[in-house]
Amino acid sequence: MTISGGGRLPETLDEAMAELNASVDVDSELWREDIEGSTAHARELARIGVLSADELDSLLGGLDTIREEIQSGAFAWDPALEDVHMNIESRLTAICGAVGGKLHTGRSRNDQVATDLRLWARRRSRELLDAISAMAGVIVDLAERELDTLMPAYTHLQRAQPSRLSHHLLAWQESLWRDYGRLADAVERLDECPLGAGAVAGSGFPLERARVASDLGFGQPMRNSIDATASRDFLIEIACALAILGVHLSRIGEEVVLWSTREFGFLELDDRFTTSSSMMPQKKNPDVAELVRGKSALVIGAATSLLVLEKGLAYGYGRDLQEDKRPIFDACQAVWQSLRALTGALATARFRRDRLQAALGEGHLCATDVADWLACRGVPFRQAHQIVGQLVREAEVRGVGLEALPTEVMARAHADLVCPEVREVLAPASAVERRRVHGGPARERVVEAIGEARERWAAARNAQPAR
Amino acid sequence: MTISGGGRLPETLDEAMAELNASVDVDSELWREDIEGSTAHARELARIGVLSADELDSLLGGLDTIREEIQSGAFAWDPALEDVHMNIESRLTAICGAVGGKLHTGRSRNDQVATDLRLWARRRSRELLDAISAMAGVIVDLAERELDTLMPAYTHLQRAQPSRLSHHLLAWQESLWRDYGRLADAVERLDECPLGAGAVAGSGFPLERARVASDLGFGQPMRNSIDATASRDFLIEIACALAILGVHLSRIGEEVVLWSTREFGFLELDDRFTTSSSMMPQKKNPDVAELVRGKSALVIGAATSLLVLEKGLAYGYGRDLQEDKRPIFDACQAVWQSLRALTGALATARFRRDRLQAALGEGHLCATDVADWLACRGVPFRQAHQIVGQLVREAEVRGVGLEALPTEVMARAHADLVCPEVREVLAPASAVERRRVHGGPARERVVEAIGEARERWAAARNAQPAR
Amino acid sequence: MTISGGGRLPETLDEAMAELNASVDVDSELWREDIEGSTAHARELARIGVLSADELDSLLGGLDTIREEIQSGAFAWDPALEDVHMNIESRLTAICGAVGGKLHTGRSRNDQVATDLRLWARRRSRELLDAISAMAGVIVDLAERELDTLMPAYTHLQRAQPSRLSHHLLAWQESLWRDYGRLADAVERLDECPLGAGAVAGSGFPLERARVASDLGFGQPMRNSIDATASRDFLIEIACALAILGVHLSRIGEEVVLWSTREFGFLELDDRFTTSSSMMPQKKNPDVAELVRGKSALVIGAATSLLVLEKGLAYGYGRDLQEDKRPIFDACQAVWQSLRALTGALATARFRRDRLQAALGEGHLCATDVADWLACRGVPFRQAHQIVGQLVREAEVRGVGLEALPTEVMARAHADLVCPEVREVLAPASAVERRRVHGGPARERVVEAIGEARERWAAARNAQPAR
Amino acid sequence: MTISGGGRLPETLDEAMAELNASVDVDSELWREDIEGSTAHARELARIGVLSADELDSLLGGLDTIREEIQSGAFAWDPALEDVHMNIESRLTAICGAVGGKLHTGRSRNDQVATDLRLWARRRSRELLDAISAMAGVIVDLAERELDTLMPAYTHLQRAQPSRLSHHLLAWQESLWRDYGRLADAVERLDECPLGAGAVAGSGFPLERARVASDLGFGQPMRNSIDATASRDFLIEIACALAILGVHLSRIGEEVVLWSTREFGFLELDDRFTTSSSMMPQKKNPDVAELVRGKSALVIGAATSLLVLEKGLAYGYGRDLQEDKRPIFDACQAVWQSLRALTGALATARFRRDRLQAALGEGHLCATDVADWLACRGVPFRQAHQIVGQLVREAEVRGVGLEALPTEVMARAHADLVCPEVREVLAPASAVERRRVHGGPARERVVEAIGEARERWAAARNAQPAR
Repeated sequence: MTISGGGRLPETLDEAMAELNASVDVDSELWREDIEGSTAHARELARIGVLSADELDSLLGGLDTIREEIQSGAFAWDPALEDVHMNIESRLTAICGAVGGKLHTGRSRNDQVATDLRLWARRRSRELLDAISAMAGVIVDLAERELDTLMPAYTHLQRAQPSRLSHHLLAWQESLWRDYGRLADAVERLDECPLGAGAVAGSGFPLERARVASDLGFGQPMRNSIDATASRDFLIEIACALAILGVHLSRIGEEVVLWSTREFGFLELDDRFTTSSSMMPQKKNPDVAELVRGKSALVIGAATSLLVLEKGLAYGYGRDLQEDKRPIFDACQAVWQSLRALTGALATARFRRDRLQAALGEGHLCATDVADWLACRGVPFRQAHQIVGQLVREAEVRGVGLEALPTEVMARAHADLVCPEVREVLAPASAVERRRVHGGPARERVVEAIGEARERWAAARNAQPAR
Repeated sequence: MTISGGGRLPETLDEAMAELNASVDVDSELWREDIEGSTAHARELARIGVLSADELDSLLGGLDTIREEIQSGAFAWDPALEDVHMNIESRLTAICGAVGGKLHTGRSRNDQVATDLRLWARRRSRELLDAISAMAGVIVDLAERELDTLMPAYTHLQRAQPSRLSHHLLAWQESLWRDYGRLADAVERLDECPLGAGAVAGSGFPLERARVASDLGFGQPMRNSIDATASRDFLIEIACALAILGVHLSRIGEEVVLWSTREFGFLELDDRFTTSSSMMPQKKNPDVAELVRGKSALVIGAATSLLVLEKGLAYGYGRDLQEDKRPIFDACQAVWQSLRALTGALATARFRRDRLQAALGEGHLCATDVADWLACRGVPFRQAHQIVGQLVREAEVRGVGLEALPTEVMARAHADLVCPEVREVLAPASAVERRRVHGGPARERVVEAIGEARERWAAARNAQPAR
Repeated sequence: MTISGGGRLPETLDEAMAELNASVDVDSELWREDIEGSTAHARELARIGVLSADELDSLLGGLDTIREEIQSGAFAWDPALEDVHMNIESRLTAICGAVGGKLHTGRSRNDQVATDLRLWARRRSRELLDAISAMAGVIVDLAERELDTLMPAYTHLQRAQPSRLSHHLLAWQESLWRDYGRLADAVERLDECPLGAGAVAGSGFPLERARVASDLGFGQPMRNSIDATASRDFLIEIACALAILGVHLSRIGEEVVLWSTREFGFLELDDRFTTSSSMMPQKKNPDVAELVRGKSALVIGAATSLLVLEKGLAYGYGRDLQEDKRPIFDACQAVWQSLRALTGALATARFRRDRLQAALGEGHLCATDVADWLACRGVPFRQAHQIVGQLVREAEVRGVGLEALPTEVMARAHADLVCPEVREVLAPASAVERRRVHGGPARERVVEAIGEARERWAAARNAQPAR
Repeated sequence: MTISGGGRLPETLDEAMAELNASVDVDSELWREDIEGSTAHARELARIGVLSADELDSLLGGLDTIREEIQSGAFAWDPALEDVHMNIESRLTAICGAVGGKLHTGRSRNDQVATDLRLWARRRSRELLDAISAMAGVIVDLAERELDTLMPAYTHLQRAQPSRLSHHLLAWQESLWRDYGRLADAVERLDECPLGAGAVAGSGFPLERARVASDLGFGQPMRNSIDATASRDFLIEIACALAILGVHLSRIGEEVVLWSTREFGFLELDDRFTTSSSMMPQKKNPDVAELVRGKSALVIGAATSLLVLEKGLAYGYGRDLQEDKRPIFDACQAVWQSLRALTGALATARFRRDRLQAALGEGHLCATDVADWLACRGVPFRQAHQIVGQLVREAEVRGVGLEALPTEVMARAHADLVCPEVREVLAPASAVERRRVHGGPARERVVEAIGEARERWAAARNAQPAR
């Protein structure tokens, strides 16, 4: 982090350079954290005697005033002052006079901005954790509501086997669970305070860094001043965690779009999450899901940007790092908006149970069950698979389901298949219940899974610090 | 592109959905093009009789008023009106009354926004072409100015062979030349007008699309209405071209940073392109070059975003495409700022000729020349290379240059090396002149290359449409 | 490009370093081009007198032998010899004796590998151009075959307006057309020969580079030796062009997957492009389309890798560039396989015309036409849109199509709607024909478009050099 | 995961499709895990009575035979058998006869490959954890060895403040520490077994999944069969962790390259980690560091590929997922090679202490100290910074260091600066010791940091399971 001029250089930048250089339109996002960090630093300066009690009071009063000015919209941001830090410091000096110039004692932009960014990342990540958890809660509620709605499970987007809507919804929830864990891990890993690292080689003043870290709610100070000012992997880690989360939201969005088509017809979004067309009066488009898919592309791009940005840098702060803010700000915003809107859309969506259940009727969904049934009778599974495959081919030629094949066709395929029990095997509802393994769609298993999920998420919520 | 409600859906969106849905803070960037496109569409509606002459006058007057309002800052953008198109259409209806509702006849948001984007992309790309050309011009000027400044050529960041500063600068210019070509190709390829494609299947009104295309300065209308509204590869192509350009700017920036170190000391930036430190009063940092490197990471991320965004979509407009604007806007802005600032920085930089030439003195830069000289005498090059490699090892042990090795060492390596001509071979200045091949650093070749470059760029500038 | 040791350094690398360093398992892909480049270089060495006629004969004979050995599988690749170049040079010396050591006179690995890569890229790109063109040909044939198959056009994956299958297929073809143009532009831009650039500062021998360039079929030699050895934007440009092409193939693949679902049922792939399941005997999965989607993700990653790889480098060859081969080889291979398999799959697929046409029946696809019809009667389009939107809402509540709404409902909405002509407006087949604008789906327009496409592609094929 | 044909489809694929479809050249990497997974599955089939004891013995014997064949190179991989799984199953049936066809009972390719991938990812990640830890160990050893080597700390690649080489090295180690944590978290998160999930909806056989999970060393079975077969975020998470690690290795590589230049001259790599040039006999290039930088670009591309690959997929296995193997295999390999070679290079590198210390002499490195000293005397830091900045400007004009400025210049700047103590302030060695804050470069702090690091890494190593 840099300032133009100082005593050494002239005060004015070239105009094109000034435009390239200014960041306040982006980094003003950090104003809360900048004031928070300055407050803690001022207190420490007072504790080590650099500031008198009066000076401290003056500075804290000035920072409070600025906070109010910004919140009320009265603060005049000035791009000529380059960044959020100089805007605030400059206003502080205007309010407090010369003592404003003492605040930056024993501190550099480099440890200041690293601290601001960690405070910001921690705050935003915790908000995102809450939003993930809220979305998971809505999904588990839906799973409970739709416990008795059967539907096909798909692979390759082809109907595969009989399953249960709530089982499908719980799969979404499992993805979110890991997303939650990744983001929580990232928050834990960034819980160290850079303040006191100075520009690169540590502050020359006897700051007690652990005390400042504690004031700011950090677990400990960072262990190395060069690392503290040069490293942004905490941002990349968050961006990667959000990119993966974005992939999951996009996959859910993909299914919402698909299920909202006339062809699938499994889902109807509430009107308030859709829009119409400027030309076609009949349209009701699943925009919420499409926008979520679209936003996730931006998050992947943001993660890429951050990786690329840091890759080429030697250790020690490089000005390239100024450009880390836009990607991480955008990524957090995109995911935040996506989580909230998609949660609302799911909470208000109507599943069309008739269509879901009807879809079990076509596609020979119980073919596996017949092969399994033969395997239980000692036919090696590979052979059983072959036998049933040929029956399916026969059924397709005749344009009927497996259950409608004539007895002689069944008999020719395998003598056992004449047994009336085969009709039972071919009933989708019983096929679902046969999948009683842990993690399967049988009703009892899903009821357990819902209970387990509720407990797990509640425990996770309780483990987060209150705020 | 969509509008909330219409007659079919209720007018209000869920609050979180409204936030996800609104784009006017980003797409207001398109206001010029939206007015331009609407003007052309209105004229065509009049030509086919949908608008009377009076109605056309009213609409064109209204659009002029809006243009002035936006330029003067008087226009009140409203996020509740979702996007730039509805903001303008809504204001137009306020100004013109019911006839405002006729403008959208035979048009959809989908062909409207595709047209706006192409107009915008064409305008911005042409500005960028000018900026690339200007930077190349500055570099060629520098190459001329520094024609007689020798320096080492590097590979692996190790000194390699004697060369010439202007030869190095011309390498930068060659990269920019291809960047210019790529962007110009992209502009040419996007020179087709989507207007009249409607929502997806073409307008139902007898618009003469070629006439509208021509009014907007396009070469022709797009050939397929589905492609016209669903495809954004013209944006990806620009983003990729800019990402490659960004890579080149970043490489130049890398060299500026390196050459500005105390260790290299080849270059001194003008103060107006550097900044100091908030903590360290002595610092003069090459921020311009670092920011250019940093911005280029964002452009790579933007190209990635656009590729990812489109990858999953079926043909026919999907709302995901709303998210294509931010990446392309940001990428163009980042490259524009980078080009302009870096051009200024190079134009005002001071090359430290003494340091550049001094760097020829160490590193055995003429070792290749000795091997070549032996090869000319019939020693197979591989063997000559081996012989000289051993001499270098010997010189390193002794801590001297090749030219300072005792005669007996040279003689032991190869009898011919005792010849006094070898001293000449070991002189860097003559080594540069020996590299007289086309594209080499010999003075005469570089003079030619400068002339050729000037002509080439001038021809390219002349080939661009005047504006 | 480097060689271990030489005379200066010991011959052995650390074991872990040797593993990191070896590239022959990847770059042996370049063997044809390496021999081609060496052949041209040897001829030039003979022309300038470095090689005698006998020496030239010996080297060319040796290179021929090696070509045959590699083609027949008899060549023993040795990772200890690091790369393709040393493997071939080493074998050449074994065959020809000491004269083998003369081949590298006036050449460096740096200009050698840059030449090999351009030759390779040109060859592979031309193959890819042919494959794109072949796919477009198949699509145009399909468009002709399915000229009279109607289907809905979709936006947001919702049925939008009546259209025509061949119109949809031609949209795919339009994307491929731009892809073809991008790749052809890249081939044209790379048509310059690096040979003679040496390691970085040009060869010290009086090679006539234009002559060598011409021997290798290049338009001209590269203009700057530093640029020639340090720049790989020609690879990035190809990778970006392929990534965009990959996006289009993925979009087509997405539609094939979708249309192959039981729910859409628009398309049936030939069995030879599908596979079944190891567990579920009934499955017929559209693997060809899914693999094409998957491969395209790899191509996007490859383009990213290449951008990132070059971004951090100063000018002058850096060893990082060794890693450019795997991404570009993989990208070309992935796209090549995708083009060929998808072309075959489309050529043999069966469109289910009944299902496509049936899909026009539901979804109020002619709502726009009614609004347009009102607009033609002077109702401002915005108001007409509102009126029809309310009719759609009414129809949805009643569970009927617009055409089935009672007359009094129509009359209440707008008096004109009682007119019998409205029934005609609501017929999908006539709605398609109403979209007669250039680029629209009316039969006549599509017939023209097919003819125009055939001519355009034929001209492009003719413009390519014969081979 | 799919198999061609089965009973339903013909056995032969189209040739181009077969090429697209085959994966055995890539996924044979999974052979160990495939045998391991099949062994556990066979045992469970025996426990639930699907296999008799004899059948189990036969299958286990067959699998052992295959393991030996593959290890010895005797196994004949056949691309026509598509993938690793069919190659092994086919060979098993050849060895064991019809009972081989029973192994796949109650299992699908989908849960089989998900299990293989998790086993593989766990094994490779643990190897990588060891390699990270080994590299950190080498760095801490170096830090101890170089405890008394002073050097400048840099920001913006400009000399900033006096510091200590070991402090710099410990910054590298801190980055690796977080990389270790990220990868360890990923391993912990993937510690769940998919086996028993079947194709998508769970196995129809009463497998006790927890028992199988335990046999394979997993903590528990996955909780949802759809998630188990459709999700690959465990691979993306690893790829992202490796991409960040790659960024750090690249940054270290960047410094090795820089420090190896003649201009910096801080570091000399051992010859066994460098290579020479094919043309320039004097070259000793820092290839190890450049290759590490290059490989890291590939890892970023791999992470991008995996994100893109999954983004578009609905839940339930899609064949696109076949393409997840190449990126993750390549990423692990690239990082593994990089870690090992860079570790060796650092362990054998020679730091040139004289050059490092000499670099403290120029650049006004103690300017901050003078400003701090004034601040301690009550001058507001901003003013002190200004004063010293002007002194630097003066010193630059005169071409001297701050310490050489005449007394009257100092006095004019600020009266206190005449004090002899200022000379002490300007001594780099004492400036380093003044930075005694936690995480600073003072000798005592660094000694503590070395001890703390040793303990931390030892604890981490102990926490890993023995193997």
